[in-house]
Amino acid sequence: MTSSKFVHIVNFWLKSDLTKEQILNFEKGLKSLKDIESITYFNIGTPANTHRPVIDRSYSYCLLTVFADETGHDVYQNHPIHLSFVENCKQYWEKVVVFDNVSV
Amino acid sequence: MTSSKFVHIVNFWLKSDLTKEQILNFEKGLKSLKDIESITYFNIGTPANTHRPVIDRSYSYCLLTVFADETGHDVYQNHPIHLSFVENCKQYWEKVVVFDNVSV
Repeated sequence: MTSSKFVHIVNFWLKSDLTKEQILNFEKGLKSLKDIESITYFNIGTPANTHRPVIDRSYSYCLLTVFADETGHDVYQNHPIHLSFVENCKQYWEKVVVFDNVSV
Repeated sequence: MTSSKFVHIVNFWLKSDLTKEQILNFEKGLKSLKDIESITYFNIGTPANTHRPVIDRSYSYCLLTVFADETGHDVYQNHPIHLSFVENCKQYWEKVVVFDNVSV
């Protein structure tokens, strides 16, 4: 039986003039997302120290969340914790790129 | 204690003129990577049916692998299964973008 996990990857580019405190606020906001119940796998990362032409290191943070299915992802999108994160932290980023994909 | 998981995300853009058989060969190659022992989390996905301006759906496949640490990732890079995948399947893609990141 093939699973149909839903992978939601978000790369954030933070504004370049943030203070350390603002960056910590952003990180705290990201970490708050972990408590959303429908998440089955979670990670927050910053670019690794790997350097090859195919590697994009231009983003500031990579948020990785996985859900059992698309319904789990929808619960996350509308969850108060997620809405609060966007409301409080959107001031910190200048660009966001999302890669949503489902298992094959 | 903070973990330092190593997340290795690879987005592949396949050539546009592949046959179904070639695409299946590519998928089979991707799936073979799952057997590399140092992988702690693994997924292969294709773009989900979500549509917002921030969502990039231009890639063909997203490979998600996670390792306990950078050493686990290095084992993967040099593993015969991975080298064989690259050798056999590089003919199928026209572009690859990698996001390597470590847990914060």
